[in-house]
Amino acid sequence: MKQTNYKLTLSYDGTGFKGWQKQPGTEADTIQGRLEAIASKLNGRETAVNGAGRTDAGVHATCQTANVILDGERTAAEVAELFNRYLPETVSVDRAEVCAPDFHARLSKSRKTYTYYVYLSEKPPVFRRKYVYAYGKPLDINKIKKACEKLEGVHDFRGFATAVPKKKSSVRTIFEARAQIEGDTLTVKLTADGFLYNEVRIIVGTLLSIGCGELDENAVNRVFESGDRSEAGFTAPARGLFLTDVSYGE
Amino acid sequence: MKQTNYKLTLSYDGTGFKGWQKQPGTEADTIQGRLEAIASKLNGRETAVNGAGRTDAGVHATCQTANVILDGERTAAEVAELFNRYLPETVSVDRAEVCAPDFHARLSKSRKTYTYYVYLSEKPPVFRRKYVYAYGKPLDINKIKKACEKLEGVHDFRGFATAVPKKKSSVRTIFEARAQIEGDTLTVKLTADGFLYNEVRIIVGTLLSIGCGELDENAVNRVFESGDRSEAGFTAPARGLFLTDVSYGE
Repeated sequence: MKQTNYKLTLSYDGTGFKGWQKQPGTEADTIQGRLEAIASKLNGRETAVNGAGRTDAGVHATCQTANVILDGERTAAEVAELFNRYLPETVSVDRAEVCAPDFHARLSKSRKTYTYYVYLSEKPPVFRRKYVYAYGKPLDINKIKKACEKLEGVHDFRGFATAVPKKKSSVRTIFEARAQIEGDTLTVKLTADGFLYNEVRIIVGTLLSIGCGELDENAVNRVFESGDRSEAGFTAPARGLFLTDVSYGE
Repeated sequence: MKQTNYKLTLSYDGTGFKGWQKQPGTEADTIQGRLEAIASKLNGRETAVNGAGRTDAGVHATCQTANVILDGERTAAEVAELFNRYLPETVSVDRAEVCAPDFHARLSKSRKTYTYYVYLSEKPPVFRRKYVYAYGKPLDINKIKKACEKLEGVHDFRGFATAVPKKKSSVRTIFEARAQIEGDTLTVKLTADGFLYNEVRIIVGTLLSIGCGELDENAVNRVFESGDRSEAGFTAPARGLFLTDVSYGE
């Protein structure tokens, strides 16, 4: 039977989910689990949905990418419509495209962008409360910007991650690290060829610690040199984090 | 003891609340109940917090006005800070001002603006899902705009309301009724000297019924003439409705 590979672009509110990745026993609490349940129903057998970024519990996405191989030759619009019919209101297939048979959302080489929102006051605004981290300490944005410059490039990010297996490479390339304050919100945007477990949240926690003076400006380099998680800042909470872009190279 | 009257400007996410107005037994589920609990604690006795608009269960506010008389002479900033410390994340005092001793948020003459958001598709966008009504039928915006013109002015709005006591006046003035579509959202904005129970939601339901052709363009006038609720459209759901402004005369 003819099969078709679809690239899906998704958004989701991570608040009530245990993250992207399906876990035994709690499939319905994961975004992948919800999508695979629908794909498996359509194919009449267990069917994988591969996501570009395995976002953690509580992390949101405005632009996650996934792919799924379905039997038959449905149009992309039909596929989007089918998924959206069965998905909860917290997950949406915003676009579906027929893609090359060998396209794999996770294994195909990509650049991912994560964006983190820090609200610069102790009490978050009512309608953004689930989508920002409210941080009350005064920040020196220039210190944060300088630290961002140090993050860019090819580095071993082991010290900015949780539980990286020793034998696995923890070298990644950050193409762009940008911080800016607009109004009452600090936005940190990181684009890389890949991120380690908890990396963005630990980087943001480190930037905040540098910005408020709890860590000095050389902290980033010290973490690179030592690879020691304890030299970095705290892990910023999941609620402020969004997967905002995934792009695949030529 | 010296007392001070404070005008509070509030925002809240109505999703989890049974509306503004305190009800016996479920005080904590109402916005007024939450505010009065704090005010009563500060004064050491039961203390009223008067709100300009008694928003219904599930209705939101970006700009509700209230007033409260507290013992002592705290600064406005202190009062805002105290309320925010004890309020849940779903309610915020965005501004407090010392006001005239006789200012009463509900009884002082005001103009209120309610804004209703209709998302023009069956599935609402993930991050706005609690703040729009998703309506899939195609709409003729010109018909809706013409119906809005008919709503403006001094009218008996009895037919656009639920359960108005016969002896109470149901004549109100709508100063402005405006509808516009931007992108995938229809916004209906009504400014009046007061609104009857469920009035905005029934008006929006009527406008949608006119826009999709289920009611003809003379429906608004028929409801004015007959005062008959059954001639009007359905009651649009609370989730799309926001109290967005309260202003007090010159």
